[in-house]
Amino acid sequence: MRIRVYYEDTDAAGIVYYANYLKFCERARSELFFSNDLSPQSDEGYFVVKKLEAEYKKPAKLGDWVTVDTKMIDKRAASITLLQRVMRDDEILFTMTVRLAYLANGRPSKIPPHLYSLISAWESES
Amino acid sequence: MRIRVYYEDTDAAGIVYYANYLKFCERARSELFFSNDLSPQSDEGYFVVKKLEAEYKKPAKLGDWVTVDTKMIDKRAASITLLQRVMRDDEILFTMTVRLAYLANGRPSKIPPHLYSLISAWESES
Amino acid sequence: MRIRVYYEDTDAAGIVYYANYLKFCERARSELFFSNDLSPQSDEGYFVVKKLEAEYKKPAKLGDWVTVDTKMIDKRAASITLLQRVMRDDEILFTMTVRLAYLANGRPSKIPPHLYSLISAWESES
Amino acid sequence: MRIRVYYEDTDAAGIVYYANYLKFCERARSELFFSNDLSPQSDEGYFVVKKLEAEYKKPAKLGDWVTVDTKMIDKRAASITLLQRVMRDDEILFTMTVRLAYLANGRPSKIPPHLYSLISAWESES
Repeated sequence: MRIRVYYEDTDAAGIVYYANYLKFCERARSELFFSNDLSPQSDEGYFVVKKLEAEYKKPAKLGDWVTVDTKMIDKRAASITLLQRVMRDDEILFTMTVRLAYLANGRPSKIPPHLYSLISAWESES
Repeated sequence: MRIRVYYEDTDAAGIVYYANYLKFCERARSELFFSNDLSPQSDEGYFVVKKLEAEYKKPAKLGDWVTVDTKMIDKRAASITLLQRVMRDDEILFTMTVRLAYLANGRPSKIPPHLYSLISAWESES
Repeated sequence: MRIRVYYEDTDAAGIVYYANYLKFCERARSELFFSNDLSPQSDEGYFVVKKLEAEYKKPAKLGDWVTVDTKMIDKRAASITLLQRVMRDDEILFTMTVRLAYLANGRPSKIPPHLYSLISAWESES
Repeated sequence: MRIRVYYEDTDAAGIVYYANYLKFCERARSELFFSNDLSPQSDEGYFVVKKLEAEYKKPAKLGDWVTVDTKMIDKRAASITLLQRVMRDDEILFTMTVRLAYLANGRPSKIPPHLYSLISAWESES
């Protein structure tokens, strides 16, 4: 997924505000749903972030094009772990490992088969 | 209402991003509800912004303390108009006239008496 | 310019937060610069928002594709006025008239010819 | 540091958007500077986030009062590590371990003595 850095993403230090890399990664996760005519937020259930580990390597700046790639690195019945990277051309700017748990009726639940099939797109780098 | 300007409010131009003054004003509107143990978002109904006119006079910067004052300048059965100002000490940084319509069940409706009484706090400068 | 609505754009009311339509409009303004290998923020000078009038007609929701179109409705030596609209297919969701002043060395200044030529793209609907 | 949750902090899932807990934690870090008449962003140098690990335990909601506490858990010549928690009364909603490196002239540098003395406030829970 390709993302342009706009003013709203930057701060007075002249670079992308540290929390906003998480927005970029979330856009990439949601986009898989949207581009398959699904919503990440369904009455049936949805994923929530439980844990993440992030590394800030180089800053993105106003006007940069960055890409987010997403790879599934762990897959369980009720949760998955993704490795997401924000790149500018060949440079890695930011990496994040994020664990998502599936909730149905507010509790940890098995990921339903049709979602498993959707998110298998992340098994091959996307 | 007193608000500190943090990194998240600024952009690469080194000043508060233009959309964020609207956030400051919304905080002041919601705070009247919260500080009276109410929520601005109720199943019964809520206010939505229909129209606004804003003027940007001077920029706020990282670390500034600003205050938001709110004054009701028009009051009708189903809508109100507020004048909100963002100040830094005696300087006016931003002014906004904002019209809010009351919706119940998704349609324009009379503002219920207990809310009228709440928002009368805005008749005297707050 | 086409924009997807992500979680970050929405709020607990389930729709796009009112300040975020201003972000969408700013993206469209900046994109004209970026797509011409320019930056909206230059040492030479830049545009600042002085005034805006906005109308909220219908809300955008999570996952929506919206488009922003931009038209110059007034053009002076040191400032311009744009009409920007956020649309979802044929529906107008949001309109904004925004006056931008050009600053060089921190003061109102004549817009330089190469920028005049750039922003003439907004004379025809873009 | 006490923080009210406003609309801007929430998303269509009805709770605080996952990136916004990082904003709350950054406010608490910056506030130590501001309340000592310093800026976190100085020509002399500043801290940048290099790494973080976050856990999401319970969501904060619109209107909640949350507090952020900050404790220094590692202190080196050129970097520090903080443990920050977002609490609602006695409940831990979010925890984050964040490593900050000090940069002067854009490179990792020794933290100057007056900043060491400032941030020692984080050695006792604040």
